[in-house]
Amino acid sequence: MDDCAVIDNGNEYMILTTDMMNEKTHFPQGSKPYYIGWYSIAVNLSDIAAKGGKPLAILAAISMPRSREINFFEEILNGMEDCVKKYGGKIIGGDTKESPFLTIAITAIGRVRKNEYMARKGAKAGDAVYVTGSLGKEANLYLGNVDELLNVKPRIKEAHELAKARVATSCMDLSDGLASSLYQLAKINGIGFLIYEKWLPIDDKARKMDSPLEFALYHGGDFELLFT
Amino acid sequence: MDDCAVIDNGNEYMILTTDMMNEKTHFPQGSKPYYIGWYSIAVNLSDIAAKGGKPLAILAAISMPRSREINFFEEILNGMEDCVKKYGGKIIGGDTKESPFLTIAITAIGRVRKNEYMARKGAKAGDAVYVTGSLGKEANLYLGNVDELLNVKPRIKEAHELAKARVATSCMDLSDGLASSLYQLAKINGIGFLIYEKWLPIDDKARKMDSPLEFALYHGGDFELLFT
Repeated sequence: MDDCAVIDNGNEYMILTTDMMNEKTHFPQGSKPYYIGWYSIAVNLSDIAAKGGKPLAILAAISMPRSREINFFEEILNGMEDCVKKYGGKIIGGDTKESPFLTIAITAIGRVRKNEYMARKGAKAGDAVYVTGSLGKEANLYLGNVDELLNVKPRIKEAHELAKARVATSCMDLSDGLASSLYQLAKINGIGFLIYEKWLPIDDKARKMDSPLEFALYHGGDFELLFT
Repeated sequence: MDDCAVIDNGNEYMILTTDMMNEKTHFPQGSKPYYIGWYSIAVNLSDIAAKGGKPLAILAAISMPRSREINFFEEILNGMEDCVKKYGGKIIGGDTKESPFLTIAITAIGRVRKNEYMARKGAKAGDAVYVTGSLGKEANLYLGNVDELLNVKPRIKEAHELAKARVATSCMDLSDGLASSLYQLAKINGIGFLIYEKWLPIDDKARKMDSPLEFALYHGGDFELLFT
């Protein structure tokens, strides 16, 4: 399964992705509603970015207990709006329902020119492996920086430049950690990867942990681009 | 808020709608997974129908406890697939997550020619009021017919004929009951409605209840078209 589904639309693809998150499984204790809203949009935009796409529209469905304060709900929306304002697109619709705990389902729609579309398939032997940003940011969870963990910066701009330049042979987003993502790329493309520890851009926060490499390779939470 | 959000796409609109449902609030006791899957798609297609649209694509996000049997999950998917097979579109993507109880978020994308698009706004004094099918089907819940209640038949075909004929001045789907829907239409259009009890197409199941009219007017569960 790719990061996004695709609809053929003339000389463009519409790219679509959906993510459902709930506060029992996905948002750590102490998550602020503003960052929950931001994060829920940002991780979907990261999928759009991985295809070289630009965000076009967002649908946001939110379920929560009736007893929750209206302020909690508004802060979620503020976070969503700010993320969209910064990275593009528009929240054009949604749904609100009652539920015993907070659940958010986001659908993001993007567009990309067909000749700029970046797929997971395409990497060849001899290609170099790149990532944007740094790896191991989930260390923030253990350092108590929950806001920072949720403050994901989708690589819309970087991905679009990359897509326009048409130099990447494959691209995906890194939501499940580098090792798992490389494994997927390897399987899809029938190749192997040689990764040098000394060249890994390990995040400063991960370096504060007992096993920085562990965080850089095996933890999720880095919504960076992985491309060849 | 309209039934759907709209993206301008040449001589068409892309129409989008999202609905989140969970087993604590939306699926009655005894709901079979097959009908849960069917229903979750059908209610979204009903929104597409209300605009005169044809289903193009579906994204399905499903959260449930890890302990649930795989068969339960597969039956949900079977219900979804059968509904799409019958009414059009294609499930092109989704997301599966862990959650303490079943939650489903569906996003449906449809398309409609701009000159066939049906809006809520447009009803005028003197227009007649129509509904498809019958009213009060939520009576099935009280008669123990949960399967039938969830076996929603979105009016895709009827709506498309209506849209092509370009005779409706306004249209919406009836998910919240006739009274509430008429109230919304009245408010949007600045008009009132005169409804004759004797002409209401009350469902046979509602007629078995103590107060058939109550079911026909005030209960949800009828995913019919209301148009003028």
